[in-house]
Amino acid sequence: MAVIFQRTSKLRTVLRHLSTHSTLSSTAPTRLLSVDLHSPFLSCSSGHFVASTRKLHAKADGPKPSPAAAPERLPFSRVTQEDLAFFRKILPGGTLTDPDLLESSNVDWLKTVRGSSEVLLRPRTTEEVSQILSYCNSRNLAVNPQGGNTGLVGGSVPVYDEIILSTALMNNILTFDSISGILTCQAGCVLENLSLYLDERDYIMPLDLGAKGSCQIGGNVATNAGGLRLLRYGSLHGTVLGLEVVLADGQVLDCLAKLRKDNTGYDLKQLFIGSEGTLGVITAVSILCPRKPKSVNVVFLGCETFEQLLQTFQLCRGMLGEILSAFEFLDSECMRLLNTHLKLPNPISDCPFYVVIETSGSNPTHDGEKLHNFLEEAMTSSLVTDGTVATEESKIKALWSMRERVTEALTHDGFTYKYDISLPVERIYQLVTDMREHLGGQAKSVVGYGHVGDGNLHLNITSPAKDPSLLAAIEPFVYEWTASCQGSISAEHGLGLKKRNYIYYSKPSQAVALMGNIKTMLDPKGILNPYKTLPDNMK
Amino acid sequence: MAVIFQRTSKLRTVLRHLSTHSTLSSTAPTRLLSVDLHSPFLSCSSGHFVASTRKLHAKADGPKPSPAAAPERLPFSRVTQEDLAFFRKILPGGTLTDPDLLESSNVDWLKTVRGSSEVLLRPRTTEEVSQILSYCNSRNLAVNPQGGNTGLVGGSVPVYDEIILSTALMNNILTFDSISGILTCQAGCVLENLSLYLDERDYIMPLDLGAKGSCQIGGNVATNAGGLRLLRYGSLHGTVLGLEVVLADGQVLDCLAKLRKDNTGYDLKQLFIGSEGTLGVITAVSILCPRKPKSVNVVFLGCETFEQLLQTFQLCRGMLGEILSAFEFLDSECMRLLNTHLKLPNPISDCPFYVVIETSGSNPTHDGEKLHNFLEEAMTSSLVTDGTVATEESKIKALWSMRERVTEALTHDGFTYKYDISLPVERIYQLVTDMREHLGGQAKSVVGYGHVGDGNLHLNITSPAKDPSLLAAIEPFVYEWTASCQGSISAEHGLGLKKRNYIYYSKPSQAVALMGNIKTMLDPKGILNPYKTLPDNMK
Repeated sequence: MAVIFQRTSKLRTVLRHLSTHSTLSSTAPTRLLSVDLHSPFLSCSSGHFVASTRKLHAKADGPKPSPAAAPERLPFSRVTQEDLAFFRKILPGGTLTDPDLLESSNVDWLKTVRGSSEVLLRPRTTEEVSQILSYCNSRNLAVNPQGGNTGLVGGSVPVYDEIILSTALMNNILTFDSISGILTCQAGCVLENLSLYLDERDYIMPLDLGAKGSCQIGGNVATNAGGLRLLRYGSLHGTVLGLEVVLADGQVLDCLAKLRKDNTGYDLKQLFIGSEGTLGVITAVSILCPRKPKSVNVVFLGCETFEQLLQTFQLCRGMLGEILSAFEFLDSECMRLLNTHLKLPNPISDCPFYVVIETSGSNPTHDGEKLHNFLEEAMTSSLVTDGTVATEESKIKALWSMRERVTEALTHDGFTYKYDISLPVERIYQLVTDMREHLGGQAKSVVGYGHVGDGNLHLNITSPAKDPSLLAAIEPFVYEWTASCQGSISAEHGLGLKKRNYIYYSKPSQAVALMGNIKTMLDPKGILNPYKTLPDNMK
Repeated sequence: MAVIFQRTSKLRTVLRHLSTHSTLSSTAPTRLLSVDLHSPFLSCSSGHFVASTRKLHAKADGPKPSPAAAPERLPFSRVTQEDLAFFRKILPGGTLTDPDLLESSNVDWLKTVRGSSEVLLRPRTTEEVSQILSYCNSRNLAVNPQGGNTGLVGGSVPVYDEIILSTALMNNILTFDSISGILTCQAGCVLENLSLYLDERDYIMPLDLGAKGSCQIGGNVATNAGGLRLLRYGSLHGTVLGLEVVLADGQVLDCLAKLRKDNTGYDLKQLFIGSEGTLGVITAVSILCPRKPKSVNVVFLGCETFEQLLQTFQLCRGMLGEILSAFEFLDSECMRLLNTHLKLPNPISDCPFYVVIETSGSNPTHDGEKLHNFLEEAMTSSLVTDGTVATEESKIKALWSMRERVTEALTHDGFTYKYDISLPVERIYQLVTDMREHLGGQAKSVVGYGHVGDGNLHLNITSPAKDPSLLAAIEPFVYEWTASCQGSISAEHGLGLKKRNYIYYSKPSQAVALMGNIKTMLDPKGILNPYKTLPDNMK
């Protein structure tokens, strides 16, 4: 039975019944394979945007495609039988060319970007990655590094015939120091597997994502994944202590320090965190893991207005303080999609806004008291109108799934235009409201959810099918709106293929030029994940 | 009256009397100007190590000086009257040439490195910094960026006649968002002033150092300062959200984002965090500040062995959990120097090891209970032998000064050889023990203190005067010992002038070569803080 409390309910009773909440499914699938949407990039492989970093020129003729469309194929070599023979020699069982086996690696999770690679390499060691890159660099063969392929901006799949270099078989844990909590592992370790490994040792990973069952730690680091715990444990720029990276020419850069502090020179590993595989292939990661909390509570609340939701956040930060580990939100449109497409029932009464708050602490009694005091204050001051609390793991998962499965629900609603925006926290929902007004009845659904604590809005707009006129109404409106608030047009998803040309909305041209110089320095032939992250036109 | 508890004392009584501890001075001077030691670099300005990054060659003749000695002056231009006229035009009141006024900027805090600059520039705006660097770059004039000049590795002062570019007058707070806790300010803001500003707004800085009264936030970021709160709030790579940097050619790189998340391309600001002014001059900082804790406690404990101290640390992490904000240690030799040179009395009975534990939380009752339970367990299991607790601010400061003033006490003990080592936490004190045994009676004092929570040992060795034979006994022993444990030879102090040539003990040659490439890319003429951070001999 779900514990539902109304404004008048006794909160002590709620907290005594924390473990009885049980109406929600705890299933939280992390990868969805059944979506079947047209790939916009299959039809635009002759797109007219070309990479000026490669000293090619935009064609003057023909209609101008979306800036997100793929640029023309760059003049990389094509894979030959000799190349395959080389790969088979160094990776006897790890050189795949069967199109059926390559299918799932050629298309992204959203089924909106599809490449046509004919070779998938699955090395097991850093040395093998080094040999592969050294060879590809000398042969001018483009390479698409791939982790769990759960990215949302088309960064993790080939655009044309790039060789796919999968880290999937590099899945060994190397060391774990139970005193310091420092874990080192190969890049292909699946996030959830690392979490399970650490759980037995009384630690947790400092990041958690909806895609945890598929995504790999190397990919997480390469995309600087944010996720649900960033509010508490900070970004990977702080928690990643070391990286081993293979550079474009096959050189192994060993920065795999297992130390919390090291000020001997420039912190080179930082360059690769969030570089989306364009500067090097991450082969191993050293990461600082927090102690496993002895007590975790999750609360699902309803608010009448976004203003009240923000006031709840402020109250929460003050009263929950150091035990607050997440503050997430979804709007009523998200709830409608969860109900409709995934048959997930609303655990509380209908509200315009819903909040998921998680606490993690070392003393269950203290945490319960803090939570109780906070809820009492939030209810008596009318900031929240309804809510339910969970402490049991299965119930916690069920409440979390209301937030984590919104992405999945959206894929059932139609073709989805996805925006991952960072803004001053007080502005994040205004963008959703303004977008709805701006689009009128053009879209099927306009929904907002995300990480309030980080000022990170996920704005998603669906339509029955791909709709160029809807897209033209959304963009550049959404980017201009964001830029006018000094926001970021990609808070945590990265730029990949889809967002690369919008970089100037969030980065000045000097910064983009410096990015280009760094790319040229580390990967002069541009073989690593081409067509991604850097814009086609360098100003 | 100090509240002292023995193993048998009632801890509840101790906690009831938390606010009565009052025997220690709360004075914690952060800069010391009276030390008068010979500068080793005054006598070695003709040292025979030269910077191969500048394509010069080591001389074969003559005795080999210490690797820490300054290399030969590089062929930068010398400041002319025309140059001074230019500077006076753009900085009418901010161009200083009076040798007396330059004296304190030419010598470092430890008085062991002394330059001979004849020009000190004090811009107030980013535009002025840009004009200065653009001019210096075109004239091939070397520049030493300088913040509070509190560094310990000779990174903050000129080596020869570099122009000193001080950020001291760039001390404006730009914005503070009381919802997100994001502060933006100019680089020259003194850390303590920022702390006071935030204190009034219920926030704190995420870093705290003994040098807080003098050090500037720009310098803190440039050296990736660690300090006393790193255990809780993480490193500046995580808390710094944005930087404005003027590059060597005067170009302004605006990465001053005020967002918790931004994955639009490479995280360029990271390059400058810890680059010690060799890649650009930081002119403004955006930083995420934690809420001010409602309750702070400090405990000063004594342990019989380092093993017990480590067990205390483990117990503490488990029982204090999310409220633990510092776990620092000093040995009995540090205590002797505090007693002897600063007349600071030991607040508890004599022990081989002392621990300073700080808790910061949102609920005084809960924090008190957690602390009480921890102390009870630590005492009953005989991990600690004596201790005292403080909650009042002046008493907290007094206890903290036992840890913060060790550096100052050392300067009174004689010429100090300083090592800032990062190691797996269980090994940190072994280095002190081994060094004592290795040196026999050669040194006056061999002391160890530092940040247990971060695995960071400050090893200091004193002698009545500079002693080349003692130095030869210490080095490379200390670096080889550290490298054998995969430790870092500079945990938080940086490399500066003094440690630059020891980089290979902690970084592989590929990493150092990449550092060299980055330096060349961003500062092709090498005008920014020459002779620092990068080794003379690139392998």
